[in-house]
Amino acid sequence: MSVPYRIEASTGLPADGRGTQLRASEKIPIIARPFVSDRAKKTLDIVEKFVEEECIPADPIYAQQVGSGVVTRFSARPPIMDDLKKRARELGLWNMFLPKNHFKEGAGFSNLEYGLMAEYLGKSHTASEATNCAAPDTGNMEVFAKYGTQEQKDKWLKPLLAGEIRSAFLMTEPDVASSDATNIGLRMHKEGNEWVLNGSKWWSSGAGDPRCKIYIVMGKSDPNNASVYKQQSVIFVPAETPGITIKRMLSVYGFDDAPHGHGHLIFDNVRVPASSMCLGEGRGFEVIQGRLGPGRIHHAMRSIGAAEKALEYMLARLNDPAKKPFGKQLHEHGVMLERVATSRVEIDAGRLQVLNAALMIDSKDAKFALKEIAEAKVFVPKVALEVIDRAIQAYGGAGVSQDTPLANMWAHGRTMRIVDGPDEVHLIQLGRNENKRGKWLLEKIEWQKKRSEELAKSYGFEKRDILQLDRQHSKAKL
Amino acid sequence: MSVPYRIEASTGLPADGRGTQLRASEKIPIIARPFVSDRAKKTLDIVEKFVEEECIPADPIYAQQVGSGVVTRFSARPPIMDDLKKRARELGLWNMFLPKNHFKEGAGFSNLEYGLMAEYLGKSHTASEATNCAAPDTGNMEVFAKYGTQEQKDKWLKPLLAGEIRSAFLMTEPDVASSDATNIGLRMHKEGNEWVLNGSKWWSSGAGDPRCKIYIVMGKSDPNNASVYKQQSVIFVPAETPGITIKRMLSVYGFDDAPHGHGHLIFDNVRVPASSMCLGEGRGFEVIQGRLGPGRIHHAMRSIGAAEKALEYMLARLNDPAKKPFGKQLHEHGVMLERVATSRVEIDAGRLQVLNAALMIDSKDAKFALKEIAEAKVFVPKVALEVIDRAIQAYGGAGVSQDTPLANMWAHGRTMRIVDGPDEVHLIQLGRNENKRGKWLLEKIEWQKKRSEELAKSYGFEKRDILQLDRQHSKAKL
Amino acid sequence: MSVPYRIEASTGLPADGRGTQLRASEKIPIIARPFVSDRAKKTLDIVEKFVEEECIPADPIYAQQVGSGVVTRFSARPPIMDDLKKRARELGLWNMFLPKNHFKEGAGFSNLEYGLMAEYLGKSHTASEATNCAAPDTGNMEVFAKYGTQEQKDKWLKPLLAGEIRSAFLMTEPDVASSDATNIGLRMHKEGNEWVLNGSKWWSSGAGDPRCKIYIVMGKSDPNNASVYKQQSVIFVPAETPGITIKRMLSVYGFDDAPHGHGHLIFDNVRVPASSMCLGEGRGFEVIQGRLGPGRIHHAMRSIGAAEKALEYMLARLNDPAKKPFGKQLHEHGVMLERVATSRVEIDAGRLQVLNAALMIDSKDAKFALKEIAEAKVFVPKVALEVIDRAIQAYGGAGVSQDTPLANMWAHGRTMRIVDGPDEVHLIQLGRNENKRGKWLLEKIEWQKKRSEELAKSYGFEKRDILQLDRQHSKAKL
Amino acid sequence: MSVPYRIEASTGLPADGRGTQLRASEKIPIIARPFVSDRAKKTLDIVEKFVEEECIPADPIYAQQVGSGVVTRFSARPPIMDDLKKRARELGLWNMFLPKNHFKEGAGFSNLEYGLMAEYLGKSHTASEATNCAAPDTGNMEVFAKYGTQEQKDKWLKPLLAGEIRSAFLMTEPDVASSDATNIGLRMHKEGNEWVLNGSKWWSSGAGDPRCKIYIVMGKSDPNNASVYKQQSVIFVPAETPGITIKRMLSVYGFDDAPHGHGHLIFDNVRVPASSMCLGEGRGFEVIQGRLGPGRIHHAMRSIGAAEKALEYMLARLNDPAKKPFGKQLHEHGVMLERVATSRVEIDAGRLQVLNAALMIDSKDAKFALKEIAEAKVFVPKVALEVIDRAIQAYGGAGVSQDTPLANMWAHGRTMRIVDGPDEVHLIQLGRNENKRGKWLLEKIEWQKKRSEELAKSYGFEKRDILQLDRQHSKAKL
Repeated sequence: MSVPYRIEASTGLPADGRGTQLRASEKIPIIARPFVSDRAKKTLDIVEKFVEEECIPADPIYAQQVGSGVVTRFSARPPIMDDLKKRARELGLWNMFLPKNHFKEGAGFSNLEYGLMAEYLGKSHTASEATNCAAPDTGNMEVFAKYGTQEQKDKWLKPLLAGEIRSAFLMTEPDVASSDATNIGLRMHKEGNEWVLNGSKWWSSGAGDPRCKIYIVMGKSDPNNASVYKQQSVIFVPAETPGITIKRMLSVYGFDDAPHGHGHLIFDNVRVPASSMCLGEGRGFEVIQGRLGPGRIHHAMRSIGAAEKALEYMLARLNDPAKKPFGKQLHEHGVMLERVATSRVEIDAGRLQVLNAALMIDSKDAKFALKEIAEAKVFVPKVALEVIDRAIQAYGGAGVSQDTPLANMWAHGRTMRIVDGPDEVHLIQLGRNENKRGKWLLEKIEWQKKRSEELAKSYGFEKRDILQLDRQHSKAKL
Repeated sequence: MSVPYRIEASTGLPADGRGTQLRASEKIPIIARPFVSDRAKKTLDIVEKFVEEECIPADPIYAQQVGSGVVTRFSARPPIMDDLKKRARELGLWNMFLPKNHFKEGAGFSNLEYGLMAEYLGKSHTASEATNCAAPDTGNMEVFAKYGTQEQKDKWLKPLLAGEIRSAFLMTEPDVASSDATNIGLRMHKEGNEWVLNGSKWWSSGAGDPRCKIYIVMGKSDPNNASVYKQQSVIFVPAETPGITIKRMLSVYGFDDAPHGHGHLIFDNVRVPASSMCLGEGRGFEVIQGRLGPGRIHHAMRSIGAAEKALEYMLARLNDPAKKPFGKQLHEHGVMLERVATSRVEIDAGRLQVLNAALMIDSKDAKFALKEIAEAKVFVPKVALEVIDRAIQAYGGAGVSQDTPLANMWAHGRTMRIVDGPDEVHLIQLGRNENKRGKWLLEKIEWQKKRSEELAKSYGFEKRDILQLDRQHSKAKL
Repeated sequence: MSVPYRIEASTGLPADGRGTQLRASEKIPIIARPFVSDRAKKTLDIVEKFVEEECIPADPIYAQQVGSGVVTRFSARPPIMDDLKKRARELGLWNMFLPKNHFKEGAGFSNLEYGLMAEYLGKSHTASEATNCAAPDTGNMEVFAKYGTQEQKDKWLKPLLAGEIRSAFLMTEPDVASSDATNIGLRMHKEGNEWVLNGSKWWSSGAGDPRCKIYIVMGKSDPNNASVYKQQSVIFVPAETPGITIKRMLSVYGFDDAPHGHGHLIFDNVRVPASSMCLGEGRGFEVIQGRLGPGRIHHAMRSIGAAEKALEYMLARLNDPAKKPFGKQLHEHGVMLERVATSRVEIDAGRLQVLNAALMIDSKDAKFALKEIAEAKVFVPKVALEVIDRAIQAYGGAGVSQDTPLANMWAHGRTMRIVDGPDEVHLIQLGRNENKRGKWLLEKIEWQKKRSEELAKSYGFEKRDILQLDRQHSKAKL
Repeated sequence: MSVPYRIEASTGLPADGRGTQLRASEKIPIIARPFVSDRAKKTLDIVEKFVEEECIPADPIYAQQVGSGVVTRFSARPPIMDDLKKRARELGLWNMFLPKNHFKEGAGFSNLEYGLMAEYLGKSHTASEATNCAAPDTGNMEVFAKYGTQEQKDKWLKPLLAGEIRSAFLMTEPDVASSDATNIGLRMHKEGNEWVLNGSKWWSSGAGDPRCKIYIVMGKSDPNNASVYKQQSVIFVPAETPGITIKRMLSVYGFDDAPHGHGHLIFDNVRVPASSMCLGEGRGFEVIQGRLGPGRIHHAMRSIGAAEKALEYMLARLNDPAKKPFGKQLHEHGVMLERVATSRVEIDAGRLQVLNAALMIDSKDAKFALKEIAEAKVFVPKVALEVIDRAIQAYGGAGVSQDTPLANMWAHGRTMRIVDGPDEVHLIQLGRNENKRGKWLLEKIEWQKKRSEELAKSYGFEKRDILQLDRQHSKAKL
């Protein structure tokens, strides 16, 4: 089957007289355009076309190739993924996520440029991995590229960049409130020239995949250090190291996300050479802070794409001639159109927020963009969940079932309010930061009030309340 | 009293070791910076200083000079406004709103640049008028500059640009649903060389001010025209024309907004020369569509400023050492900090939306920016109202009373969801526009499904539902 | 003018074939009916008729008779109020609020029965006072009846019950976080046989009325008492006592609520005899806890009435043939009907909550009903504000102006989230109370999990995770 | 293991000095108590004990006994269910759902009484079926009891009441908007003495269970009938009838709800004797209207139970000493307590709404309770979803995974906004019904305004706007 001209002409309105449809590069918000190179625009359009024409149709094939049964699913290697990867490399869509100003290994785009592409990747289950831009490998590759020794890079970064192996980042633990990373407690102690690891990790995303070969593990190497920010270290641990057991996988609203999945792992006297340490003993916080920023933005940008896809599905449903409750198609029901409009408004606000945050990272680094990243991290998943939920409601039963990708997208989106720090943690940090200027604002307002009183005097009167009364009953009586 | 160094050093964090405070020009979102000239940045900082140090302290003085009693209040001319205007001109802060690419008469800034300034103007009741950037004069001046004859410009635009007179835009009517402008029905008929106007108008904002000298009036001049968009005309009517009565003023919640106010006017055989017509008979829709776009963005930008001011008040309250419910200052209550953070996230999203919309106008015109303007028109007032309401709740009784500007700001903000078209109208238009691609999306999704089936075959299997059963009880029985 | 039969036949649907309209007594939620006596039902219908036919039409007359100018307005005694009171007494509608099981002085209804009546009173500005059921007199009369000496009763309760004087309850203070009553700090010290009061109070509602003759004042009489709950006393202070100044009145979103109003009072060496003490020195908390419960329910019930009135206004607007945006009357726009329906759902839920809380008070006392009162206190004003706001939006400009009672109702409703303790205080108390069973629930859930494991064994298997994997890469390699 | 005394003493606060825990019968809202017999109270406490001590621990065992693999899961018959059923019958907990005033076959409780029990059943996955109170059998049994012939009753109602077989209600169809039941289109035509059925159904809940023996099917028997409400019939079809294929099962988010499940069925020339017709040809609407009311209330009541369970889980988490983000346990974070409190307020409001609706049904029938049922149908699932979602957020990763029942409860709860009519359908009907009094309200308000004017005159003045101005510029000039 040949690709229809309408898709060929890129997504959007059909060429039926109502105007040609805009390509992805033409839909970049005007305020972001100066930051997008011509090369990035061209790539963006190829990304869109690849996603819409090749990845989205591949999504259900991938799902079917994963098979059934827990063991089968978590040892699956769906052939279509290898084919998509090959195709992506042919199209020049590979490792776009590695920002050009920080890493020479990537495809040479900025965070903002990649952000625009990630939106489209977020519309398909397979697209991110097909272009080697899938979490957690992206962040992990950044860790290797930024903090790895040459030896570590050769051994792990190289095959990761080539898409030959996968990786996992082991931070979260089942037994503590690991949203506060100072609580992370997997024990690391040194014996001779080895580190010995004991403890458990969960939400080790990607650990289910048999191709996952390397774990980046955060643990507590110095529990007595006076600074709670220096008690932890990050260390590289090959997945095959004896003593590691993937006890089980975790589900997300009934979805197992196989083969990738979210592992619950046990570390029982796991030994790695001292040279496996990342950056240096006690520098775990430095590593995770360097790692998490861009990842949050990638998640947010893909969430924008998910929201756009949900809106597309909703619009399709609204125009399905078979669905006519109470004699009118759904798009003739004002309630539905208002939800579409609200979704449009919110998605567009979220996109601007993400692009602005990406630009802050581009201009310096993730730490510099702390506020902007946190804002997008909180705002975008909330918007995406609402948009997806509206689409689900428009579909009714079909919305919650396997017949649309909506339920799966919602479940995935729901985790976005938890991973990389739950909303509450980001909000409390934003709130505290904002609060720093509180005392000064109190003084400023006081100063302005005093200035008003002076002004009144300069006009020859006293400042007086609009409802001044100065009434004394007792005097009135006299 | 001399201005304290902290204010001098511009608003924000005090120079107390936590770092110097950022000026307005330094707080421009990174994504908007390339669009702001050095001159605009400099002006922006002067605007901020003028507003914080001169206008905000002047606000209560202005209120007091308006006096009491309906008649007094609506004939007031508070002396401090003239002083502020003089001061603003000295500082070069005058007519910043007239966009440079469309009008030669203004201060030479773009809509985006003015947008940044308008945010600060929105923090004070007096600042917009003091800089001759107050609605509805701004939009009205645009009408004169864009559509006026030389004579009309000389007579009305000149004194308006000079801040000598004020103006009103008479569109809304009490007896119809004028949110749909085709319903506007003030009768206009021609007698000889005159137009004769009969009917009533309300929400004629600014009509209360004795300095308001010119009305721009929309009426129905051709009720039988086949096109409902050609039945109306816009005409210039001097306020002193016999037959016009300001019957009463309208309150907003309990505020009368004197002397400016919102008038309910009666037109009883009001006669103006035929030369008073704006643009041409039957071209009323053209005029109002050209007028409303930038005005909506101005409103939105000032609303961002109001929200920022409310947040400042909230932060001041949270740090008031006298307010310690249950043994902790308010900023120690996590619930309060979370609200601060949420406000920060939403305000910042709203600002980006407004700036992006302003840039769309700059790049071409308001019609081109229809979607972006509508988005900001809906999103920003909602955010501002929520932020202000949170601040009010933090203040308790003080919040709803005259002791903070919050209640007044809320009441004004509430009208923003109604003026220039209620939310519902903008949402339905956004929804309809989005819906245009619905049919095509339905086709696209169908195409993707068929492509999936082809792909399955190419891998040698049939696409199969994940919960396929194909169970027949009757066969099972056999 | 004679009352039209439709009103005569009581409010609701017209007798036009669509069925006769239900009277108030017929609209009592079925679950509440067994608790309403026939006498109360009869009275309820009279209340409804009185409110709809006499009080609501009187509301604007009352407003006009209050006059203009601060001093005038706060010394007004609108004649229509005296007429309404006379009429109410004729109809037997007087002091319905004093619950029969606690006080012999009232009209002999339960809190639940009065709750139903209060809903209708809440639809008119004048109805509560006209029936001598207005706050703060209601709660104050309860204080006198419950804690007053015979002398105090004779002097103050008698004229209050007769509606001859009014009263105020002086608790809130401008300088502390008085939402936490332990912070209340008006100084009370004993000199000889007198208490001397110094300090300031605000939000002294009703203090503006010249007929307000008695203040019930909370102050700090024993600042060093080890128990923060025994430092305060409540004392009766005649309004005419020398040393008291009503400095000014407070506005609520621009409304001054004259002549009633909300006073800001200064106490400067105010001396009252020791016999003025209420209940006993140091027993202030007892008094206010006994007072606040029913008052919160009265407020909530009147808020239900306000919400119902707003919904009536909204429905009227939706059926106004003059209002046809985009060719359809407002009731033909699905968005509007959905808002009507949502309002109906929420109001009805709120009513049940209030009635249930009233019944808890009836069954014992307000302390017993702490949880139920707090729930209604938080839920109902939120609902009422949303319903009123939806009605305002349906009216557009008319909604925010003096042309409907909606804006005033909203402003009043907004204070309901603040007075008698802001939402946050009630929620934190509800939350803490709920949290008391937290540890036990943790144990219960653990017990249930262990029981599951035992059960599994009894069925011959081990409990196993649905995604158990127990995979070891290192072993797999071998 | 013996049951701990705390559970024995019934759920709630431990007997540790903070008071004994209340049993279910002691927690009945006071306003509902008069409607609950002593026998029902006693049964209620047994239900609570059975659910907490036997069913909840059985839930994971049941899940494990269902097994893995699509075919296995949908032919499973978990032994523990049979044991629970046996136990329930021993305890006298059987068929409590069949309301005593309508059916003699049940356990002799009212809808309100069963409503209280259903709340507890809603806390466990297995409890409803264990007590033979599971949907869709409950509604289906009502259909047989109400509309069945003696023969139909003997054949199907008897084994259903005995819990020997299960049933499904086949209404929803994949190809139309079946939320509007007039669209239902499965073709039914008569051939001789048989009805022949062709078409497809989905969301046939319970059809997956091998014990499901009878389908109640709605189809279009008279497509040309002038009344769209008489085109459909309901007919009884044995599951084993040739021509029926369960094509596949539908998932809800990622859950398959096996073995019960939600089937997608194909009818291919399915033949049943004419005597299988329910009630009579063309009377399908009568049947479904009689069926859906109580079912909606059962769903709502179980949703209340689910919300309570989620709140219990949240409280347990808040008190888990292992979870201390930022140095404080979760219950010390005010944000969390506020969410607990809000949940408590909303759940309690929802419960009252459901009980009131149940009582309306008891007092007459479901049709009489249309409004109240619709209100609960819309309000309760919304509340439950929010409460569950808050609990999920408090648990973070554990919340979305299989480690708590929360994700499954949420997914199930989400369908409650869709099944038996989506929110939108109920709201539009409620809205239309409310709107019926719109015209009359418009007249009433007009009457009240005129009455005001008369009143003004009787006091000797004209009604005057508070901001009357009557200003004419032109006259002012003279």
